[in-house]
Amino acid sequence: CGNGTAPPSTSSTSSSHSYPPTPPPPLNCYDAWCGVAHGCTRKLGMKICGFLQKNNSLEERSRIVSSFKERAAKNLLSCDNIGGDARFRRTETDFSNLFARDLLPAKNGEEQTIQFLLEVVEILTNYIRKTFDRSTKVLDFHHPHQLLEGMEGFNLELSDQDTLKYGVRTGHPRFFNQLSTGLDIVGLAGEWLTSTANTNMFTYEIAPVFVLMEQLTLKKMREIIGWPDGEGDGIFSPGGAISNMYSVMIARYKFFPEVKTKGMAAAPRLVLFTSEHSHYSIKKASAALGFGTENLILLNTDERGRVIPADLEAKVIEAKQKGYVPMFVNATAGTTVYGAFDPINEIADICEKYNIWLHVDGAWGGGLLMSRKHRHKLNGVERANSVTWNPHKMMGVPLQCSAILVRERGLLQGCNSMCAGYLFQPDKQYDVTYDTGDKAIQCGRHVDIFKFWLMWKAKGTIGFEQHIDKCLDLSAYLYNKIKNREGYEMVFNGEPQHTNVCFWYIPPSLRGLPDSEERWERLHKVAPKIKAMMMESGTTMVGYQPQGDKVNFFRMVISNPAATRSDIDFLTEEIERLGHDL
Amino acid sequence: CGNGTAPPSTSSTSSSHSYPPTPPPPLNCYDAWCGVAHGCTRKLGMKICGFLQKNNSLEERSRIVSSFKERAAKNLLSCDNIGGDARFRRTETDFSNLFARDLLPAKNGEEQTIQFLLEVVEILTNYIRKTFDRSTKVLDFHHPHQLLEGMEGFNLELSDQDTLKYGVRTGHPRFFNQLSTGLDIVGLAGEWLTSTANTNMFTYEIAPVFVLMEQLTLKKMREIIGWPDGEGDGIFSPGGAISNMYSVMIARYKFFPEVKTKGMAAAPRLVLFTSEHSHYSIKKASAALGFGTENLILLNTDERGRVIPADLEAKVIEAKQKGYVPMFVNATAGTTVYGAFDPINEIADICEKYNIWLHVDGAWGGGLLMSRKHRHKLNGVERANSVTWNPHKMMGVPLQCSAILVRERGLLQGCNSMCAGYLFQPDKQYDVTYDTGDKAIQCGRHVDIFKFWLMWKAKGTIGFEQHIDKCLDLSAYLYNKIKNREGYEMVFNGEPQHTNVCFWYIPPSLRGLPDSEERWERLHKVAPKIKAMMMESGTTMVGYQPQGDKVNFFRMVISNPAATRSDIDFLTEEIERLGHDL
Repeated sequence: CGNGTAPPSTSSTSSSHSYPPTPPPPLNCYDAWCGVAHGCTRKLGMKICGFLQKNNSLEERSRIVSSFKERAAKNLLSCDNIGGDARFRRTETDFSNLFARDLLPAKNGEEQTIQFLLEVVEILTNYIRKTFDRSTKVLDFHHPHQLLEGMEGFNLELSDQDTLKYGVRTGHPRFFNQLSTGLDIVGLAGEWLTSTANTNMFTYEIAPVFVLMEQLTLKKMREIIGWPDGEGDGIFSPGGAISNMYSVMIARYKFFPEVKTKGMAAAPRLVLFTSEHSHYSIKKASAALGFGTENLILLNTDERGRVIPADLEAKVIEAKQKGYVPMFVNATAGTTVYGAFDPINEIADICEKYNIWLHVDGAWGGGLLMSRKHRHKLNGVERANSVTWNPHKMMGVPLQCSAILVRERGLLQGCNSMCAGYLFQPDKQYDVTYDTGDKAIQCGRHVDIFKFWLMWKAKGTIGFEQHIDKCLDLSAYLYNKIKNREGYEMVFNGEPQHTNVCFWYIPPSLRGLPDSEERWERLHKVAPKIKAMMMESGTTMVGYQPQGDKVNFFRMVISNPAATRSDIDFLTEEIERLGHDL
Repeated sequence: CGNGTAPPSTSSTSSSHSYPPTPPPPLNCYDAWCGVAHGCTRKLGMKICGFLQKNNSLEERSRIVSSFKERAAKNLLSCDNIGGDARFRRTETDFSNLFARDLLPAKNGEEQTIQFLLEVVEILTNYIRKTFDRSTKVLDFHHPHQLLEGMEGFNLELSDQDTLKYGVRTGHPRFFNQLSTGLDIVGLAGEWLTSTANTNMFTYEIAPVFVLMEQLTLKKMREIIGWPDGEGDGIFSPGGAISNMYSVMIARYKFFPEVKTKGMAAAPRLVLFTSEHSHYSIKKASAALGFGTENLILLNTDERGRVIPADLEAKVIEAKQKGYVPMFVNATAGTTVYGAFDPINEIADICEKYNIWLHVDGAWGGGLLMSRKHRHKLNGVERANSVTWNPHKMMGVPLQCSAILVRERGLLQGCNSMCAGYLFQPDKQYDVTYDTGDKAIQCGRHVDIFKFWLMWKAKGTIGFEQHIDKCLDLSAYLYNKIKNREGYEMVFNGEPQHTNVCFWYIPPSLRGLPDSEERWERLHKVAPKIKAMMMESGTTMVGYQPQGDKVNFFRMVISNPAATRSDIDFLTEEIERLGHDL
């Protein structure tokens, strides 16, 4: 069934349903949609088909339903063999008469609601099985125009099966494309619970448990950073870019609180510093918050992508000489491409000397704090004024889960609070200091904490440590495998600091060429071509990009708990297979 | 079972398990936790208990497990009667030996994973049943210190059952506390699928279907706003506050694009306008983006909370006379407290006359665009330059789902793009104009579109219309019921524009008092007291707040599809019951 049976013809031979047999209707958008709602996914398909029909004529509806019933009947045997375990099998249910309006809160809607959700879960668990099955594709690639043909005019023809079918299995053991990969089952259970609770982090009143969990978890994270007694402040935000934006806002509030009321005109010309390898969110924050990207000064790095502290100090002095005020330094713990860790202690020395806010962007590398073996790469992080740390990256928590942690308590509140009396009432019957809404730049805030909390509870700190150590071992394995292998060239020398392994694959046709511009121009096109072929064949996914004056190279990253050495081997074999004749 | 059987004593009388019977151990944190993991939720409880033990000694672990097995055995009958339908019943599974590390991607982890998820779903479906059951409490209130006692020291004792137990049933027919209420089952299924797909909206490459769905849905929303052919731009953001922040950023970029590179110093003194009744996110944006809250000018409103256009024009002229540049006007379509709709057409006339960006904050009221009966309240919205519209409020989409829509294409990209070559590769094999990452202030972005898309597909536009019309009918019912009823006083006269009904309840002891300061002072304390008693008894929840010079009053809002007239009647009865003797 996983292989997908071709949908049977719609012409009926014998009919077991209550509608009279009709001649095969002309193909239309519903048929196109029905064509993909086959096989194991037919049940939700029928349901949604039912929903779809409620604005259509009865004739049209019965046609669709009968067509589906036939398909269902034909696919019955092949699909029911899949489940395997009789305990998971449920009675076949006819959803052809079920409408969205029949679900709860509809009267007597309970049974249909539960049955509907169980069917959804069956589809999802089938998807999960396939995600972890190496014999399935990572993706079933289609160009935008191809998918759009099925969706044009908002005709709603694309089914939720398609959503999974044409989507990318980010949890697949061979998906290496992003910093966030993997599908943690405990985290997933946490997300399902969160969405069922459907509340937000606005006040203790409406999210008492989540608000407290957030508070406890942030404290634990601050302890791990090394701030005394875990003191300080923090909040979960919708991603690392927003967390980094918070850090700039808070730093500005610390040094120039009057900007909150009077605007940037009340401050001198402020400058910010970050590495040329840092994440672009620092630049986005400079633009958004009114500093201007020209006042973000890029720092030079060594060949491994780490900030050169002397360059920072020189640029601070230069800015001061021009009359500008150096306000904020971002040190990256785990850069996006090279996985480099800036030397935090040396940067902290300079920040202390010149009274500059030190932020550590550990969106990608913060997870290494959980590993006794690797946390030394963030030495000095306890000297930072603020830290971004995304559990949804290296720690495998489902998206989104990002924290901004602040050493000094009160700044977050001071910076963002507007004391809207109609939103936060001081005369509530409980201790309103637990209401977090006024700390945030958001109002309502999605509950990102529970899945993380549940995972931490289930795995323990040691579970995260094992995961991280394993991923770093795998990247060392890849590095050691290819560093001297024919056809590979490393982008920088030495074992990677994080799981990022950056390399060029040199096809045989380029191996003899001298180190000329022509060679680099041709090499620049190799990674995109291999990636395109990978996506077409759907076997694996890995990212590529240029960086500075370096032409396109592959950036392998490993954060997927499902990945093993065999998957690493598969990746290099696949690159060699696809790239051999370029 | 819903009533909760008291957990049986841990002392064993007869033992059916393989561990030797032991004397009852002293109560510790595990017991405290176990005490609440009883009844129908015992299965996930056992599982999590198993997870919890993996770092503990074998002795400790077997003690817990055996204790659980006993409890499970004792509760077996009472719980298995609940499901009712045999189709939903699954074989009892012993999770006492299951660890998080046994789940996928563990070898042979498939069966345990599926079983685990099915158990989670059983807990969630039980929760859903109770949510729609009026005989259950809306919440089981505990003070922060009480819940914290169970969580202190991050000992992880609080179970996921507690999370639901002590949480607030925002989908309960009698939960009226927030603008976002209700639990839409189709939307919930969409959220479960989204979290299983676990990808983000960064690029077409990793979220092809979601990226296209977002594009089509935004276009449909723009068509409904009335922009020709649905042209324009937009993006889903993490809530209305961020959507409003986008609007201010885009307006600034339109008039002063050089601020992006040079900062606010490159612009003259810019001023923004919004109603004194508007949402505080406009003020937060003024602070964050470097305008300063003093440069946000508050507009006077009529007694219904609607902006007085003449006041806007006078203040624009005054600002210009001072040499400031009026740049941005926010018109609210559905204010937070009164539910007021600012007169958009008259405001648009002024904005056109003085070349000012017009934003419509329809976070709360935007949903009314789906109703032929009520959309006239937003007449003129098609003249706005940008619109915030939160399907997660009036349209019942699960949190978070908020859109910022922009009439002019290109501004969003121009304002936010940083063209990070290492993140967005123009040499990909597909049409990269579908990559949305560089339009956003975020980098990774949660998939908020699918649940909305699925609901739209299932209900149709007409389904949303019916929901909205019904909620407005219910609020009219409440208004007509209490406007002349003894013991009630309306905060403003006339039928509400949105579902907001604002009123004071006057306890008998205050009814005879003259209109004095003392009366208002005493009245100010009534709503908080009633609310506190409501929360303690857990029967219903409704918000209160002061506004301007008005003392605390109740703000009833209805967006919950489960609410009926009987729930409205219940609310007033409950207010009268609790407030009678104050």
